[in-house]
Amino acid sequence: MMNNDSLKTISGVLSGAERILLFPHINMDGDALGSAAALCHVLRRMGREAFVLLEDKIPDNLAFLDRGYCTFDADRIGEPDLCVCVDCGDAGRFPKRREAFMRGKTTMCIDHHATSDPFCRYNLIDPGACATGELIYKVICAMGQEIDRETGEALFAAITTDSGNFQYSNTTKETHEIVASLYDSGLDANGVSVKIYETVRLEKLKIRARVLENITLYGGGRLCIGFVTQEMLKETGALMEETEGVVAELRSIDGVQIAVFIKEEEERLCKVSLRAKSVGDVAEIAAAFNGGGHKKAAGCTLHCTLREAEEKMRAAALENLERYDK
Amino acid sequence: MMNNDSLKTISGVLSGAERILLFPHINMDGDALGSAAALCHVLRRMGREAFVLLEDKIPDNLAFLDRGYCTFDADRIGEPDLCVCVDCGDAGRFPKRREAFMRGKTTMCIDHHATSDPFCRYNLIDPGACATGELIYKVICAMGQEIDRETGEALFAAITTDSGNFQYSNTTKETHEIVASLYDSGLDANGVSVKIYETVRLEKLKIRARVLENITLYGGGRLCIGFVTQEMLKETGALMEETEGVVAELRSIDGVQIAVFIKEEEERLCKVSLRAKSVGDVAEIAAAFNGGGHKKAAGCTLHCTLREAEEKMRAAALENLERYDK
Ligand SMILES: [Mn+2]
Ligand SMILES: [Mn+2]
Repeated sequence: MMNNDSLKTISGVLSGAERILLFPHINMDGDALGSAAALCHVLRRMGREAFVLLEDKIPDNLAFLDRGYCTFDADRIGEPDLCVCVDCGDAGRFPKRREAFMRGKTTMCIDHHATSDPFCRYNLIDPGACATGELIYKVICAMGQEIDRETGEALFAAITTDSGNFQYSNTTKETHEIVASLYDSGLDANGVSVKIYETVRLEKLKIRARVLENITLYGGGRLCIGFVTQEMLKETGALMEETEGVVAELRSIDGVQIAVFIKEEEERLCKVSLRAKSVGDVAEIAAAFNGGGHKKAAGCTLHCTLREAEEKMRAAALENLERYDK
Repeated sequence: MMNNDSLKTISGVLSGAERILLFPHINMDGDALGSAAALCHVLRRMGREAFVLLEDKIPDNLAFLDRGYCTFDADRIGEPDLCVCVDCGDAGRFPKRREAFMRGKTTMCIDHHATSDPFCRYNLIDPGACATGELIYKVICAMGQEIDRETGEALFAAITTDSGNFQYSNTTKETHEIVASLYDSGLDANGVSVKIYETVRLEKLKIRARVLENITLYGGGRLCIGFVTQEMLKETGALMEETEGVVAELRSIDGVQIAVFIKEEEERLCKVSLRAKSVGDVAEIAAAFNGGGHKKAAGCTLHCTLREAEEKMRAAALENLERYDK
């Protein structure tokens, strides 16, 4: 914990504010929006003036979380007593709302990403939480507020998405204890997950199918390389962002140890996502191309054609696998 | 509860037996094998002679659950005191082991499928449990036995697979409470889920991609029809069973209300899976073709060509949607 305030302080500051603006990060996910929605709902129920301020569109599958909480108008609340960044600990994660954030009489950060440099007046930052939703749950309990069904469903959305449906290693005993208690609110967990996961654009399915049809295995099936081109996007009508997560599918193939997914952003600009299963260190591969990341998940950018990027990645990944095999 | 015995009786009969054979259902899933493995492990730790008797191959992604528990030899234990069918309540679910089962001095069923006709001497059948793994957990606790890591991981595998990673509507507060307590065993939930989900055959990914590339939408995007032919299987090297679950992906498309997936088993034999989202009743469609199922999930068999089957399903599904729209 880095200079954290106690739950008592955090809940006290929240309860003491009259006008509160909440800031989920850009490219919001289920945790960012679910956490902000849950807190906004409870604050309103307490009679406070609260809004979630956005700078980008809510993804269709998360739209159900906004029960009138969200606004794009930074002046929606005259002079906020308190601005809270939710699921992000860096003003770079809400670039167009930075100024609005700083206008708050005081500031607070509730987040589960590790940071070396907290920038708010009050901080509740816990990298041990699988989702910011877990922290919001604790804050609501510390405020002595009940978890009603709306709150329970928003928190379930936050926790289930960020924990990879309770499969990622960030999931803990406490995660399941919190979710068990959310069930007391009358939570329809299946209803929430149908909304989140059963609203897939046809174009997204099509581009993912196209990627999978064109993968190649190397090194006796231990390396999988897939790619997406601008032409594939044009043909399917899909957006580049709709290929997100496909690299995990490449890694899931039996026998594959390293998965490489190359996005042709422009003719000579390729973004590369790398994943390792049990053997190999993809942070090393990425670093060799001025990228970064962790041992099992990393990325880099290459200024060359797709074919050249494939060739470079193939050589680097095979070398890495060979070295780590020993 | 249909003529159930108490946990005390069930745990007493298990503890009192010296030689026990466990019978998961054919086409075993994570719940059947995980539940049987957990119970076998605990019985052996108690000094009993226990085996899991199989009649078909363990799927690759579940092989980690067998820590020397499984056998194909019905005579592995001379005269079993007790035969237990696990995650099934009907001898038709272990057809080639039926005789071996009946050789048990007494018989027991531990299952979460509803049945009108329990056939064992002792029964613990609870359709309210999301997985048989939940019932095995309770039985182990009732026997006063500790959940060690091997047991915890087998039960987690059982529960997470049958609950759809805690997203299906069978998941309850108790499901999460049980899993929270499994964490005390030192459970590596992420490790288990990587083994279960990250061992996908390349051929399976390929056939699913091929299916998705060839779907068609009708009725303004409200009906999705996909198919798999013997030729598609031959070209990708995939097995028919590897298309299982793809119908759920078809239903997940934004706007789709009914999804139809047609498997060309032979030239004039098509098996059809039907799923509905919120509108429509696919049990009605299936029933019109002598099939059956529930409102949201049903199936039928058609003796005609793939093209004819598509045409029949298209007409029936569009009619159903139109009727339920009113
Ligand atoms: Mn998060
Ligand atoms: Mn089951």
